[in-house]
Amino acid sequence: MNLRIPGPTPCPPDVLAAVAQPMINHRGPEFANVLTTASEGLKWVFGTSSEVFTLTASGTGGLEAAIVNVLSPGDPVLSISIGSFGERFANIAKSYGANVDTYSVEWGKAADPTEVAARLESNPNYKAILVTHNETSTGVTNPLKEIAEVAKPYDCLVIVDAVSSLSSIPCPVEEWGLDVVISGSQKGWMSPPGLAFVWLSEKAWLANESATMPRFYFDLARAKNSLEKGQTPWTPALSVFFALEHAFGLMREEGLESIYERHRKAGELTRSIAIKNGLELFADNDYASNTVTAIKWPENVDGKKISSLARDKFNVVIGGGQAKLQGKIFRIGHLGHFELKEIEDAVLTVVNLLENSTEG
Amino acid sequence: MNLRIPGPTPCPPDVLAAVAQPMINHRGPEFANVLTTASEGLKWVFGTSSEVFTLTASGTGGLEAAIVNVLSPGDPVLSISIGSFGERFANIAKSYGANVDTYSVEWGKAADPTEVAARLESNPNYKAILVTHNETSTGVTNPLKEIAEVAKPYDCLVIVDAVSSLSSIPCPVEEWGLDVVISGSQKGWMSPPGLAFVWLSEKAWLANESATMPRFYFDLARAKNSLEKGQTPWTPALSVFFALEHAFGLMREEGLESIYERHRKAGELTRSIAIKNGLELFADNDYASNTVTAIKWPENVDGKKISSLARDKFNVVIGGGQAKLQGKIFRIGHLGHFELKEIEDAVLTVVNLLENSTEG
Repeated sequence: MNLRIPGPTPCPPDVLAAVAQPMINHRGPEFANVLTTASEGLKWVFGTSSEVFTLTASGTGGLEAAIVNVLSPGDPVLSISIGSFGERFANIAKSYGANVDTYSVEWGKAADPTEVAARLESNPNYKAILVTHNETSTGVTNPLKEIAEVAKPYDCLVIVDAVSSLSSIPCPVEEWGLDVVISGSQKGWMSPPGLAFVWLSEKAWLANESATMPRFYFDLARAKNSLEKGQTPWTPALSVFFALEHAFGLMREEGLESIYERHRKAGELTRSIAIKNGLELFADNDYASNTVTAIKWPENVDGKKISSLARDKFNVVIGGGQAKLQGKIFRIGHLGHFELKEIEDAVLTVVNLLENSTEG
Repeated sequence: MNLRIPGPTPCPPDVLAAVAQPMINHRGPEFANVLTTASEGLKWVFGTSSEVFTLTASGTGGLEAAIVNVLSPGDPVLSISIGSFGERFANIAKSYGANVDTYSVEWGKAADPTEVAARLESNPNYKAILVTHNETSTGVTNPLKEIAEVAKPYDCLVIVDAVSSLSSIPCPVEEWGLDVVISGSQKGWMSPPGLAFVWLSEKAWLANESATMPRFYFDLARAKNSLEKGQTPWTPALSVFFALEHAFGLMREEGLESIYERHRKAGELTRSIAIKNGLELFADNDYASNTVTAIKWPENVDGKKISSLARDKFNVVIGGGQAKLQGKIFRIGHLGHFELKEIEDAVLTVVNLLENSTEG
């Protein structure tokens, strides 16, 4: 099957073989070794010398951990929302009592750093800004470096959903001055879903000391204590750790720059095939994502039917539109482990099905 | 390796093979099928006709979900604590603002239903009682049926940590009148860690409507909405679902009564070998667990050294003592997938190492 949704992504065969390893004692030296390999790999990709924590949860669990570990109920927060996952991030903060203002951008466009600067200037008391690096629902990559830059004069924490960007698109967390950054195993990391990664800057750890949002399972102070002993506070998803351990070997072999370049090429290829075949891209071309491409269904096309045909006749699985984009776009995931040929095949399969459906 | 800790437990070889299946679309029909098989299996083992929800988290995440979905900050709660996991359960409730009274039992003993009845009589306003069915840290199984019975005249919810009991020890949630019940994939379910299971009674769902503890990732109302569409709200740990799907096939083949009987025999065998060889059991014999046995280290024995020797020389991995029992007991897990011979070998390995260490 050519699984071309923006996560879960296909795992390399030897990563899948690693997943099938027998269980081990999560409080013993074998797991401490696995955890060390994973931690070192995460630090390398995040671009940090401090620890990245691994939680047994999906990316959404990581987003929740990011918020509840550094904020208190009532804290004023600026949410920068450019799509479905931006809304989710804001909703998590609201669920835990943050006082959320939203800078809402038309779906398909990126956030404007100048507008973020203006909002911070008019309210310098924001405790945090929430920003999605790569919006999976619209296929847009925000100018994160520039957004973080305008936030620098302020005390606010820059909390970043990098679930579908990190390891595929450059996101050096220290160099860019980010404070809390989250990713998830089933995206660019070539591993099955089940683990979320969360990193905190020194400033974020300071905020953690006075943050009063309730937390237990996602308490990163506990994760920090446990990691010093080569453990996680609660029983970890061992099989996904086994995958990750192996995936880091592959990633180091390929090298970060080559990985980024492969994703850049995949984004370009997907967009160019779509355009060449008369399809319209959903995302602003200046901010088009290199991990997921959103393409508009032509007028009067039954997208659901085309998607089912692609899956049932050609083994190509594409993503649909989320929330208000349901039935309006389809999405091609090109992140993690892939060959350019697979991306090309997937897009051309949809193109051919569309041509046949118009003829018929 | 003979992994004899009380979870993660060894997975049967064909369950591990199932874990290695390629990724699929978690919003497509393939996953809906997997989820249906898992849900039907869970309902069968829990003994209920209503849905059991599967969260991507460890058992502790399931405990948190149980609390935050039915309680509000300030709610008076009675915690029945007989060990480390009882304390954890109470701490989660406290973290989220519950007003927790504790009925604390000497470690190694079970809770007394008469005492629970007396406490409920003197404070009939408890919104919930928290009780551990099988306390993994001490190897004690509480008389859960009797505890639930004395709670019946009251309005309080019976919230049960059945992480290390359900599927190994009878725990029919409807028949016993329980309200919220949690288990975890890496215990008796023959699967890797990564999934927690949570069931709510009708009464608990009513409580859910007015419960105000903050929640998002663990929000069971969202899980309920998603399950109706054959999905989970967030990306699930697919590999563990693949394991579970296969494990239910094995469990149905063996039959629930036979599974319980196998665990009963394993408990008896472990205890009898220990006693026959002059070792002292930690748990009150009347309430000794059939999934994990806690055995006291003899005086002046370096338990850590014996454990390391068992692991490094004989490939037998045993559990240590937790919290205040560290260095005082060791624990043999006998739950999930095992042959009685493996249990016997593990206990005898420790016995032989102890004999040699005394001689030496």
